[in-house]
Amino acid sequence: MLKIIKPTLLLDKKKCSRNIFFMANKAKRTNLILRPHFKTHQSAEIGNWFRDYGVNSITVSSASMAKYFADDWNDITIAFPVNILEADEINELADEINLNILVESEEVVKNLSRQLTSTVGAFIKIDTDYNRTGIHSSNVKAINSVLKAIEASDKILFKGFLTHAGHTYKAESQEELSNIHRKSINQLVSLKEMYINDYDKIILSIGDTPACTSEDMFDGVDEIRPGNFIFYDVMQYEKGICSASQIAVCLACPVVSVHKDRQEAVIYGGGIHLSKESIADKNRNAFYGLIVKLNNEGWGEPLKDCYVKSLSQEHGIIKMSEAELAQISSGSILGILPVHSCLTANLMKEYLTLNNQKISMMR
Amino acid sequence: MLKIIKPTLLLDKKKCSRNIFFMANKAKRTNLILRPHFKTHQSAEIGNWFRDYGVNSITVSSASMAKYFADDWNDITIAFPVNILEADEINELADEINLNILVESEEVVKNLSRQLTSTVGAFIKIDTDYNRTGIHSSNVKAINSVLKAIEASDKILFKGFLTHAGHTYKAESQEELSNIHRKSINQLVSLKEMYINDYDKIILSIGDTPACTSEDMFDGVDEIRPGNFIFYDVMQYEKGICSASQIAVCLACPVVSVHKDRQEAVIYGGGIHLSKESIADKNRNAFYGLIVKLNNEGWGEPLKDCYVKSLSQEHGIIKMSEAELAQISSGSILGILPVHSCLTANLMKEYLTLNNQKISMMR
Repeated sequence: MLKIIKPTLLLDKKKCSRNIFFMANKAKRTNLILRPHFKTHQSAEIGNWFRDYGVNSITVSSASMAKYFADDWNDITIAFPVNILEADEINELADEINLNILVESEEVVKNLSRQLTSTVGAFIKIDTDYNRTGIHSSNVKAINSVLKAIEASDKILFKGFLTHAGHTYKAESQEELSNIHRKSINQLVSLKEMYINDYDKIILSIGDTPACTSEDMFDGVDEIRPGNFIFYDVMQYEKGICSASQIAVCLACPVVSVHKDRQEAVIYGGGIHLSKESIADKNRNAFYGLIVKLNNEGWGEPLKDCYVKSLSQEHGIIKMSEAELAQISSGSILGILPVHSCLTANLMKEYLTLNNQKISMMR
Repeated sequence: MLKIIKPTLLLDKKKCSRNIFFMANKAKRTNLILRPHFKTHQSAEIGNWFRDYGVNSITVSSASMAKYFADDWNDITIAFPVNILEADEINELADEINLNILVESEEVVKNLSRQLTSTVGAFIKIDTDYNRTGIHSSNVKAINSVLKAIEASDKILFKGFLTHAGHTYKAESQEELSNIHRKSINQLVSLKEMYINDYDKIILSIGDTPACTSEDMFDGVDEIRPGNFIFYDVMQYEKGICSASQIAVCLACPVVSVHKDRQEAVIYGGGIHLSKESIADKNRNAFYGLIVKLNNEGWGEPLKDCYVKSLSQEHGIIKMSEAELAQISSGSILGILPVHSCLTANLMKEYLTLNNQKISMMR
């Protein structure tokens, strides 16, 4: 049994392996390159688990993260609009590995081109209606101007079109999700058709865990970049994307107080451990995690009618059913399935496997 | 001028000094001990700034944080319901410094008493209607049982009653805040009157930044434990507790993309930098920070109609007025005043002063 005395992020390696296998297998089956996003786990050791499944290229979300993983991986895409203030960092990385960046404006390409000393690959970030970043797929004028600027540069190589259909996270049914996914792919495929005569090869890259998990149609797509699927979380579970038994991380927290009068327990485990990411329940009330019991094999299914009601910096307030509350006292350990595993991992900076091994992360 | 290439937490030392002076002066004037909460800054160096203002005792929120500060401070209260699983850590600390803990149940006191090898001071945590932790002030039976368990222990010394009236954060007017504050104090004072014949000394300790900043009546209170006031933040500003010019930290973030069509900029700066803490605007829409321009003296007032609309892991989406948007481009730096400075500091793990000095934090 694990000895837990303060908030500890437990990691079930078997579940991770199954999650990686599932996605790698789907990629193989549908003839896609899996370029997993490593911002979820941010760990060199966990990253290496992907090797067994034929993964050779990865995605990260910052130059700092690329630097951390560059010791082990020589094909990295920084899936974030390139930050021209980090041109030195980009040059250093591009000297060492095959580096891809994301561009979405003519000015940025021109500016970067003047600063680059090494060659980088560039994807044009396409907005397929998520409306966060990128050039909208219909804005051919802007895409042309970026392509022209790339052509004029001897350090930037055009690699293809990349999108993140993050609005799949907001889909309220599988049908809606499928529609978003298909529309998004169609927008990329149309662009490829428009420009394929000018380029030998145009890679189409997509990235969200909901569609990569639950969809099977990827016609025309070359590469997928999901990240969250290695751990999943309550957000994906509530959307029906994964089952609870696929969630591979769990924050183990000591109970410090039990309030039977209001059916609440207080845990040592707050916003600096779980993150303040919340999700709405059926009554549109926000909650911050689901509750599980630890056992010899890891942890069980979410307890009915039990959830993290609120979080302060170190406190978590847990709403519990009368039956479950009767079984705990100060000093008990509760497991919390996080709403957003990427943010919880980022805060905890370390994992503890069920075999009692610590796994470190990028600092 | 500071060289900023990625999200950087700027700290205005002059503002901090003024904020500390204000609170220390108020404590002196109203005959209160100031035992500031160090969970806000989590920095040994910043902690030492309080020495100049006569501060000798501090508050922290975990045994780990007490350990970090124990090199410099020998009178520390861990203002969190004591975690009996950390008895070893508590013994180590109590060997070294004057340590106070918070208790709120007979069982915990009895359990701890069996494990303690060194003497600790104990405050009984009182719930004055915030309903997060503690024994409700009206529950005399439970208070008696805890006091009895403390009396039976030769390692636990009763120090007094402590509360955190966190519901002041939700007050919608100064009048409501004053009412909460007065009611909370009255509840503690009544308890003191009830038990004063049994004890030589009973310390009454209160803690929230809103009341400690804006109230002047502390009759009967011995000690205040505010923390956030050293930095303040948008939450306190929106509640009218502080002015914008008192906010002493600002997250400097590179602009990576400008979307004039929807009046938005994208910054490198997301939930892993600012935290996902949000606050509702007048129309009940959540936002995650206010925008300022950096200048030679630090930064200016919040820009009108500009705010952080949403946050992903590394992305921040900034809504900007047309006039302000016209002045920036990729590579510009925007300053973000955080909604909750404690959580932002906890994520950033380092400060940069306006004199270009790095200040480290607890890791």
